[in-house]
Amino acid sequence: MRRHLLALLISAACAHHTAKGQSEYQTDSIFIRKIFNTALSDGKCYEVLRDLCFKVGPRLSGSAGAAKAVQYTRNVMIEQQFDNVFLQDVIVPHWIRGAKEQGWIVTGKTGKIAVPITALGGSISTPKGGITAQVIEVKNFQELREKDPALVKGKIVFFNRPMDPTRFSTFDAYAGAVDQRGSGASEAAKMGAIGCIVRSMTTRLDDIPHTGSMRYASGVPMIPAASVSTNAAELLSKTLAKNPQTKFHFQQNCETLPDVASHNVIGELRGAAKADHYIVVGGHLDSWDFGHGAHDDGSGCVQSIESLRLLRALGYKPNHTLRAVMYMNEENGLKGGMAYADSARSKKEKHLAAIESDRGGFTPLGFGIVGSARQKEKIKSWAKLFAPYGMHQLGVGGGGADIGPLGPLGTTLLGLMPDTQRYFDYHHAPNDTFDKVNKRELELGAAAMAAMVYLIDKYGLE
Amino acid sequence: MRRHLLALLISAACAHHTAKGQSEYQTDSIFIRKIFNTALSDGKCYEVLRDLCFKVGPRLSGSAGAAKAVQYTRNVMIEQQFDNVFLQDVIVPHWIRGAKEQGWIVTGKTGKIAVPITALGGSISTPKGGITAQVIEVKNFQELREKDPALVKGKIVFFNRPMDPTRFSTFDAYAGAVDQRGSGASEAAKMGAIGCIVRSMTTRLDDIPHTGSMRYASGVPMIPAASVSTNAAELLSKTLAKNPQTKFHFQQNCETLPDVASHNVIGELRGAAKADHYIVVGGHLDSWDFGHGAHDDGSGCVQSIESLRLLRALGYKPNHTLRAVMYMNEENGLKGGMAYADSARSKKEKHLAAIESDRGGFTPLGFGIVGSARQKEKIKSWAKLFAPYGMHQLGVGGGGADIGPLGPLGTTLLGLMPDTQRYFDYHHAPNDTFDKVNKRELELGAAAMAAMVYLIDKYGLE
Repeated sequence: MRRHLLALLISAACAHHTAKGQSEYQTDSIFIRKIFNTALSDGKCYEVLRDLCFKVGPRLSGSAGAAKAVQYTRNVMIEQQFDNVFLQDVIVPHWIRGAKEQGWIVTGKTGKIAVPITALGGSISTPKGGITAQVIEVKNFQELREKDPALVKGKIVFFNRPMDPTRFSTFDAYAGAVDQRGSGASEAAKMGAIGCIVRSMTTRLDDIPHTGSMRYASGVPMIPAASVSTNAAELLSKTLAKNPQTKFHFQQNCETLPDVASHNVIGELRGAAKADHYIVVGGHLDSWDFGHGAHDDGSGCVQSIESLRLLRALGYKPNHTLRAVMYMNEENGLKGGMAYADSARSKKEKHLAAIESDRGGFTPLGFGIVGSARQKEKIKSWAKLFAPYGMHQLGVGGGGADIGPLGPLGTTLLGLMPDTQRYFDYHHAPNDTFDKVNKRELELGAAAMAAMVYLIDKYGLE
Repeated sequence: MRRHLLALLISAACAHHTAKGQSEYQTDSIFIRKIFNTALSDGKCYEVLRDLCFKVGPRLSGSAGAAKAVQYTRNVMIEQQFDNVFLQDVIVPHWIRGAKEQGWIVTGKTGKIAVPITALGGSISTPKGGITAQVIEVKNFQELREKDPALVKGKIVFFNRPMDPTRFSTFDAYAGAVDQRGSGASEAAKMGAIGCIVRSMTTRLDDIPHTGSMRYASGVPMIPAASVSTNAAELLSKTLAKNPQTKFHFQQNCETLPDVASHNVIGELRGAAKADHYIVVGGHLDSWDFGHGAHDDGSGCVQSIESLRLLRALGYKPNHTLRAVMYMNEENGLKGGMAYADSARSKKEKHLAAIESDRGGFTPLGFGIVGSARQKEKIKSWAKLFAPYGMHQLGVGGGGADIGPLGPLGTTLLGLMPDTQRYFDYHHAPNDTFDKVNKRELELGAAAMAAMVYLIDKYGLE
């Protein structure tokens, strides 16, 4: 009898628990539906992005555009009546492209075929008048190192390993090729080269050169480095196959100026229960210096602002303080991300979670997670709440560059993971413009971030 | 002891079965990987689509463009050395838009605001000089029917219910609004209206009018019907709110000419074991009469051809005969789909499965299935083989318009289901052009179709 009673009690307790779980699930499901519906029917982020693209434009760290972007996004969050909007000081590098970058394949004594090139971010200038030299084409560092240094000396090294088009995730393809851009110049210089050109980081064959950061290894001569469009890379490679003596010419006038005072831009919705515990959403405010930086990372910035605006518009009262952070200087220094984490550390601000959107404003498919197994399981237990919106990947992939420095502080890191197929068509290139962003796709990402913030704010990550 | 022996035998048999299953899974997984790798690294369909867009162009049934498209796709399959390429006769309607379609909001006695309009497919012309009349704005048929007929008589009915932006699938949003386009004119005519204008079927706010088919109910006067861009619809609605007497003018010169002899285009890879059993993949070759019909349905056509080319390029020898079918006249008659099924019926051709791609050349997410529960389960059992390519929806949604007539013959119908977010930005509109199609997304769809054909060909659907 007592055993029966116990069984009955346990059963009743479980039923209660299940009923409670069901009811919570219903509540969450309904609220998340409201988030998505509001984002899709009354979203603001597409118009904010339009202004960021057309009224602000490109915004490389240290530039007038970057300063304008700081003021613009600050004003947006003030106008949207965030509880608190403030700037956080960040000292950033100031590299400029300069005027007149050009390149050509030298054909015969006087002939030339002009090809699209662009200086890599951080590169030095060529000598005045440019460099003209024979070309050593290689696919990777190993192939270069096996060359006779006498052969490489005084030449231009041409890194021409394409991004692997068979990788389903274009980010994987990028990861497999970007060492050429990042370290190619120093690898070439170690062998005595006087210049470095790199095939653009895209799977497309077109005439658009893609820039991106490079760094010089210490103790190695600095040589100028540029990217060439994929079509130009193909042409140069074919030309070299016919005539290995073919020369290439390029000229660029880039320069690294003294560091500049800049800012992260932070907007807050204050928490009711635990105002000194934070959940942050963010993207990086800087972009490269051409196009609009629409996908990279205008999208992530406006989605972050929108995700908090949506929660407020729906009357949600957060437990923790929610922050939208526009990080400065992701592209060529990560100073904003580091400054944010430094500040959090010194102020002993407890950050539960940081979410970043920096993979383009495309249809969201899930979130990457960097956290404990238990935290991952907890987040994955919310899968059913995201499924109606096409998001079926929770826990595939990592966080994001800007939030990385928060990791050592015990913050769970999440990265919004959109469809990757188109991203590198536009990445770091003049065609990363507003028209490439689809309104609905952008809004879905913002809604997904809002839903994730809501769930973490409500349930925590313990 | 005997029981032990039996258990051992069963265990061994199971292990064998599992090992065999494992090994088959490995074989399939490796082959499908090859399909995707080949599609992404050596795909041909993007260039075929480029020519279909630029060298053929728009191809409404009965037009010179449609005839050119028949010859072009026939030649592509001949050049790709399909075993057998042939044309199937189809008689199609021949509607033409005519010159000079225009519309404006009449403001005051002499003022006007020109707005983008386009005749709906199948509509009659306006009287020479167009129609000018007061406007009755409604959101649905019910609202219209509740009006006083005396109020509607002699007016233009303006259907202005937007596609619901909160539907995650834009096809659902389309399904919830397209009755206005299809039946609006006759519903308006029943109430005595002399013209009908319909808000374009897109969630975007822009200046692009979207056409699409409409049909006249029998026994109801035929009145001219046009679509207006969404921005124009918003403007007209606001203008009417201020002044309900506002008049609208529109003029169009469309015409239905006598039917025309046209064709489905069919390419075959002959099967080794069961040559008289068929698996078909297809899209529709006709498009509306502006833009390129790049997504609708140039993409589906070139993906279908590509899916079989991929199998051949990889040396696959099919058991069943595989057909790529370019159906004519999906947009305004479905005569091609019906002719194909009629022929299959009269020739007693057994069709195991028909796969259609007619939802745009975007990142594929899965296949819709129309078939028995057992067939659905069988197809779903292949989910793990599609998962590495982002395809996680097997069995969500249906087949396709062109393959629908094969259903009654016992054919399992599958529809390729891509991401839907952008489709209706371009659907039936002048901006459905080649540049809107992403090469990788298109190729992934072709590979997905090839993989599905391979699995059905290998395992059947019993």
